[in-house]
Amino acid sequence: MNKHGDIMELAIRRGFIWPSYDIYGGVGGFYDYGPLGATLKKKIEDIWRELYCVKEGFLEISSPSISPEEVFIASGHVNNFVDPVVECKKCGSSFRADHVIQDAADVKTDGLSFKELEEIIDKNDVKCPKCGGNFGNVWTYNLMFKTHIGAGEKRVGYLRPETAQAMFVLFNRLYSFYRKKLPFGVAQLGKAYRNEISPRQGVIRLREFSMAEVEIFVDAGKKTCENFAFVEKTELDLVPQDGQGVRITAGDAVKKGIIAHELLAYHLTLVRRFLEDVGLSGEKLRFRQHAKTEMAHYAADCWDAEFNSKRFGWIEIVGIADRTCYDLEAHEKGSGVELKAFKRFEKPMVVRRVALVPNEAKIGPAFKARAKEIVESLKGLEEKEIEKFSKNGYIDIEIGGEKMRLDGDYVALRKVEETATGEKITPHVIEPSYGIDRIIYCILEDAYSERDEKAVLNLKSSVAPIEVAIFPLVSKPELVKVAKKIYEDMKASGLYSIYDEVDSIGRRYARVDEIGVPYAMTVDFDTISDTTVTVRDRNTTNQVRITLKDLAETLKRLLSESVGFGEL
Amino acid sequence: MNKHGDIMELAIRRGFIWPSYDIYGGVGGFYDYGPLGATLKKKIEDIWRELYCVKEGFLEISSPSISPEEVFIASGHVNNFVDPVVECKKCGSSFRADHVIQDAADVKTDGLSFKELEEIIDKNDVKCPKCGGNFGNVWTYNLMFKTHIGAGEKRVGYLRPETAQAMFVLFNRLYSFYRKKLPFGVAQLGKAYRNEISPRQGVIRLREFSMAEVEIFVDAGKKTCENFAFVEKTELDLVPQDGQGVRITAGDAVKKGIIAHELLAYHLTLVRRFLEDVGLSGEKLRFRQHAKTEMAHYAADCWDAEFNSKRFGWIEIVGIADRTCYDLEAHEKGSGVELKAFKRFEKPMVVRRVALVPNEAKIGPAFKARAKEIVESLKGLEEKEIEKFSKNGYIDIEIGGEKMRLDGDYVALRKVEETATGEKITPHVIEPSYGIDRIIYCILEDAYSERDEKAVLNLKSSVAPIEVAIFPLVSKPELVKVAKKIYEDMKASGLYSIYDEVDSIGRRYARVDEIGVPYAMTVDFDTISDTTVTVRDRNTTNQVRITLKDLAETLKRLLSESVGFGEL
Repeated sequence: MNKHGDIMELAIRRGFIWPSYDIYGGVGGFYDYGPLGATLKKKIEDIWRELYCVKEGFLEISSPSISPEEVFIASGHVNNFVDPVVECKKCGSSFRADHVIQDAADVKTDGLSFKELEEIIDKNDVKCPKCGGNFGNVWTYNLMFKTHIGAGEKRVGYLRPETAQAMFVLFNRLYSFYRKKLPFGVAQLGKAYRNEISPRQGVIRLREFSMAEVEIFVDAGKKTCENFAFVEKTELDLVPQDGQGVRITAGDAVKKGIIAHELLAYHLTLVRRFLEDVGLSGEKLRFRQHAKTEMAHYAADCWDAEFNSKRFGWIEIVGIADRTCYDLEAHEKGSGVELKAFKRFEKPMVVRRVALVPNEAKIGPAFKARAKEIVESLKGLEEKEIEKFSKNGYIDIEIGGEKMRLDGDYVALRKVEETATGEKITPHVIEPSYGIDRIIYCILEDAYSERDEKAVLNLKSSVAPIEVAIFPLVSKPELVKVAKKIYEDMKASGLYSIYDEVDSIGRRYARVDEIGVPYAMTVDFDTISDTTVTVRDRNTTNQVRITLKDLAETLKRLLSESVGFGEL
Repeated sequence: MNKHGDIMELAIRRGFIWPSYDIYGGVGGFYDYGPLGATLKKKIEDIWRELYCVKEGFLEISSPSISPEEVFIASGHVNNFVDPVVECKKCGSSFRADHVIQDAADVKTDGLSFKELEEIIDKNDVKCPKCGGNFGNVWTYNLMFKTHIGAGEKRVGYLRPETAQAMFVLFNRLYSFYRKKLPFGVAQLGKAYRNEISPRQGVIRLREFSMAEVEIFVDAGKKTCENFAFVEKTELDLVPQDGQGVRITAGDAVKKGIIAHELLAYHLTLVRRFLEDVGLSGEKLRFRQHAKTEMAHYAADCWDAEFNSKRFGWIEIVGIADRTCYDLEAHEKGSGVELKAFKRFEKPMVVRRVALVPNEAKIGPAFKARAKEIVESLKGLEEKEIEKFSKNGYIDIEIGGEKMRLDGDYVALRKVEETATGEKITPHVIEPSYGIDRIIYCILEDAYSERDEKAVLNLKSSVAPIEVAIFPLVSKPELVKVAKKIYEDMKASGLYSIYDEVDSIGRRYARVDEIGVPYAMTVDFDTISDTTVTVRDRNTTNQVRITLKDLAETLKRLLSESVGFGEL
């Protein structure tokens, strides 16, 4: 059996990951995390929070997964988050056009237009893989799940395809929260959705998945990093877009222009640190820079952290992108609400600009009670409004809901000099974006090993869903009683614990090795006389005796890796 | 300003809770958790997991939020999870029929039929609250968000209205995970959805909300609890369905038949413990039993934990229900897959039953190669199939996709005696179900107090989103440098920390009191000479000096409440 088969068989049999809704025939692209998988996931997410939310200080937010369509019209997802689809004229099945082409005729499809895809289907006589029927035209399929908010299908909503948009929509509130200073970062963990036409690749291409994303808002002119000195010697395996793979320090990668700037390089090192913290082997990790054609419409530079999977080859597990000012500008345009930061100059500057000056002597008599409001309104006009006046010779304003047009009689253009303390800027965004489900799959695959033809899951203690197992040596009442008491004590002290008295000790060890329990303890007849238990290390199978009094504390130190097994 | 106004104003201004999508005009029933709210939520959920997943051993699972419609047809939600709606004939606005009646004509609407609601609208001349127009008929509005899975709108899906159904659908896998033994419990935290027609009551009635649910699968004949002895003296404030409120111990409540059984009573005590652990005042909590008319279609008994809110009165924050075997039977029927546990008899029993016995002498010659398969198939028939034979005189079976009918020539009814080691049963389900968002609102409201006319949020240390604040006494470089170093150290040691050097110390204290930071420390000129800082307790404003060497450890002990401020 290949390695993927082994780990998925184990993952399903032992309760890590289950295909969803199987009693109803199953639905592709959905998986449940069973008790071990969900606990593993929670631990991974906690390590992530510890790194980003506590240590980096990027506090998390939690936004709805349903958004009104305005959000995704502005972000570009309604138009751009699409796949090319063909439907079989005979059986009605739908497929991704590029997938059926790749399967039937070894042809590259990246970046091709719909028309080009149709031509390839024609030329290569690509048929429906289900029934052999002919395909119709290629059409656009939006990958967002659509729904309606409220009664009567009145307002269209979508399930978010990424958590990031909420952070952009909330920019003004977040900017205020961080006392109106750049840079600041915001994190979010949660579900995202992608309504795949026909999901393939099992757990690594899901219709509903978990992301962990950070958006760091920065001044475009300052993509530096205060803490870069701490990481500049960190070695990274990089595959730049135009070149060979290279092992290089973060500092040198910036100096040589391989990574665009310090801030991006800093976040590459954080990603690598996290991936190693949750147990992935450093030698199976690399960062690959997106080719220009592959880069998202909003990105200036983008690197994928990839894991070398035995089953899937190199797969993307984290993306680290410089999204520039694309998103904030898009939502500013979409909502009509300004989304900008104020950048203070080092010293106040005299700026010359063209202003629209009200002719108060005329406005007063003409508009009477409303004159004051009109004058105020003219002072607050943005540059683009002023440009309109110079083109049209009039300006339209709205006072208390009433529209009015003012021409050259009432207002005039004039050059003015002002002392400005700063200017408004649209921040740029640096985004590390983690695919949690793929990371879970990679951790399981990477941890899988065999000993004496039995599976052993070498999970890091920090992510192991079950931390300790308690066994009575044999199921005699006097041992069972003590073992069950210890089991209750371990749970009460906060350790994820299981109790097992069925079968031989050897088989019980094998069962907990297979789910990656780092420490298993056996209660024997000596336990009753000397109040010690035998604790066995999963990886080495070494055993030590530990007194009951210190048991929970000792196990916690072992699990935190602050002491080694040999040091006890 | 009323208390609700104060706490919501504070919650929005300081970054706990924000109305969603306000730059796009807002969408009712959706809120974002800002940085402080999301961190508070995470801490509450961690305390919940510590109680249920670690200490009770009910490991969590994590299921998709989208389900195919079969799941909710079987569960009854497609038919029953509905509200009565009326639409204005003039302006087209939709409203809940019972709400417009309650607002216009002080009439009770619980349990009324659509026809009765229409009659009340007619009789009381209830008009559209928006435009004064007349209403049309009352119609049924399903509260689930609907979507489609895959291309071409082929498969209807719904966003789950509760997380519970996934645990029922997965019953067979969970039962195997727990080594086929009852009782066992499974937990799930996650989003659920309810497409309200016109959401009211702000944060306590949301369209998208967070739940934490436990399903405990038990033998219907054993609704006892091993650990009941530990809680039977716990006092509970109960409001039974037919009676006055009473303060009574859990043990007495079971003895007097007020609470149906030990297991339900045990879970009421756990709920109370959790609510106090996250900081809610015991005297504002009670358990109210559902009236028979109010109980969900599946429940045998149901208690709501309620909090006495200044703004909303008594509001439900947790439901604890005995759902009986309703759900498993419903999904067994819906899916055609058996969802049962095997209950071992204390000793093997001789059971008499009627069996369908194949006449092999006739089947052999008639069906030749298929005879063996037919005989096997007849042995595996369930009781209801056998009943059909005794009624109809024939039996329909399916072999390799082909249907065949066998009459009395081929099979006969006969009484047989068998030794059985046990029987199949459908487990009952006990369910504590928490509404996390409402609990968050109640915690904020309950923690709100004022000192010298300034807001102080008396959050328990275990849920406070920011744990420590670091201030330089004045913003001189030598103090700023030390304070920033301490800030970095506190974050590195895992504490949620903020740094602030703006304004007077008094204003900075006020700012962190308002968001519930338990400990604020000041770096002054003595810090440089004696390496101590002043640490101030939020609730008492008492101060002590702590040496930098022990700072992180001391703060962690203070936050865990293992030592008091006075004991340092």
